[in-house]
Amino acid sequence: MADELPGWTDGQAKAQILEFVRSVTEPGASFVPPPERVAVFDNDGTLWCEKPMYPQADFLLRRWTEMARAHPGLAKKQPWKAVTEGNQKWLAGVLEHVPELTRGAAEAYAGITTEAFERAVRAFFDTARHPVLGVGYNRLAYRPMCELIEALRAAEFEVYICPAGGRDFVRVVSQEMYGIDRQHVIGSGATLEYRHGQVYRSKGVEQPVDDGPGKPVHIWARTGRKPLLACGNADGDAAMLRTARFGLLIRHDDAGREFAYDSGAEKALAKAKERGWTVVSMQNDFKVVFDL
Amino acid sequence: MADELPGWTDGQAKAQILEFVRSVTEPGASFVPPPERVAVFDNDGTLWCEKPMYPQADFLLRRWTEMARAHPGLAKKQPWKAVTEGNQKWLAGVLEHVPELTRGAAEAYAGITTEAFERAVRAFFDTARHPVLGVGYNRLAYRPMCELIEALRAAEFEVYICPAGGRDFVRVVSQEMYGIDRQHVIGSGATLEYRHGQVYRSKGVEQPVDDGPGKPVHIWARTGRKPLLACGNADGDAAMLRTARFGLLIRHDDAGREFAYDSGAEKALAKAKERGWTVVSMQNDFKVVFDL
Repeated sequence: MADELPGWTDGQAKAQILEFVRSVTEPGASFVPPPERVAVFDNDGTLWCEKPMYPQADFLLRRWTEMARAHPGLAKKQPWKAVTEGNQKWLAGVLEHVPELTRGAAEAYAGITTEAFERAVRAFFDTARHPVLGVGYNRLAYRPMCELIEALRAAEFEVYICPAGGRDFVRVVSQEMYGIDRQHVIGSGATLEYRHGQVYRSKGVEQPVDDGPGKPVHIWARTGRKPLLACGNADGDAAMLRTARFGLLIRHDDAGREFAYDSGAEKALAKAKERGWTVVSMQNDFKVVFDL
Repeated sequence: MADELPGWTDGQAKAQILEFVRSVTEPGASFVPPPERVAVFDNDGTLWCEKPMYPQADFLLRRWTEMARAHPGLAKKQPWKAVTEGNQKWLAGVLEHVPELTRGAAEAYAGITTEAFERAVRAFFDTARHPVLGVGYNRLAYRPMCELIEALRAAEFEVYICPAGGRDFVRVVSQEMYGIDRQHVIGSGATLEYRHGQVYRSKGVEQPVDDGPGKPVHIWARTGRKPLLACGNADGDAAMLRTARFGLLIRHDDAGREFAYDSGAEKALAKAKERGWTVVSMQNDFKVVFDL
């Protein structure tokens, strides 16, 4: 499998990944049969770039801007007031926190069919550009992580993506970005309602949100299994990592090629040693970051 | 594919199934690529026998009986009072209705891990016998339906089972009964909670229940797609059938080999012609019912 990870440097992280996969796929005491080889990946900051803001936050901000322009009367109420006034502090309070962001997206797109929502997401990925890197968000998957997903699938793992925000947002691009079909995207979602042959988004959020303690709950509900391998990058991924036999924690320490930040991951990083999680340094373990 | 359905008589239902599968798998205007070939099957009365009571109702009834014996003080309260007094009418009111049955199962098994619940379900299937047919419930899959599932998978359909009651109940036997892994079982579930590395059942029920208008909602949430083929047997399956391109409705009209009843399916049967659903007569279309 080593040849399948050309974007990884030959360090400890790569060696531990290879050793783990070998141990569960080769005959022996640690062998796990294929149907039980479930691997789960967080998305924001684990598979794609989440700075300076979550892609879904940009998607939502554009929608609020569009609503405020189309209906000037909205400018008296939040969130359109903050958009109109350029109140970054208020906006950050919503856009940086998964539960608030998820609720915001549910409310801003309530009452339309799931197909209409998909068209809006598609248009966003086709036109929006990352504010710093200048390319579409769908070009900002981490190449080494895509290699890892592909190698795991070749080793008969069933790979699921677990975005804390926006299952139906990520599904639109999961195949083109990661080679993962939409059926394998778990994650937070708006509540849905069936009427007259169609499924509509309503303005609530499915509970629990797929973050923190909600992640193992979503994974069980969807797969009926505990993950064999779990990979995340933030405190909200710690519960998911704890339920897995092998935990991988991506550390954002590459200011030159991506962004360097430990904020939001302090607790997970502190627990990594105690729990035996493998910490992946983007600076040292990734030969390449993006496929640009 | 005709050879793969030896348990079906060569009638209109079989011909329509074969023609539909041919139309979406062979090149032409109706062709659908494999990732979009999603087929969904209701479970109770569609894939396994649901009379004289749902298998999950028997499972729950045994649990209540066990609880009432272990804690005689419970006999003053329902449902244990009805169990102790043999009040069939009261019990039928709970056990025959999906939302009540699902809530009852969630409450009777609250506070244990998903693994402990699985052990209880396993013990039920290993020991309980169908009250009329005298064999384990896990031997009461309809053989022609198992053939259909296998034939669809051979035609690159992704097949999901959508039990209105008890996702985590059906998952325990889905592989041995239908060849369907647990990841492909959708359905109603107890609410779940994560604590200290484990997932526990709590006493609520995930909303919506996977029945009636909840079925298309669950299918979208799990797959991100509308089904291409849907198969059910009751009014609670009508919404699911309406969202599919091809609808199959199983009719229980075989008093000799199974049970004959249209109750609970009156509306679906009335709509079948209007919606173009294929009605499968168990008496006429099934050469064999069970694999006994």
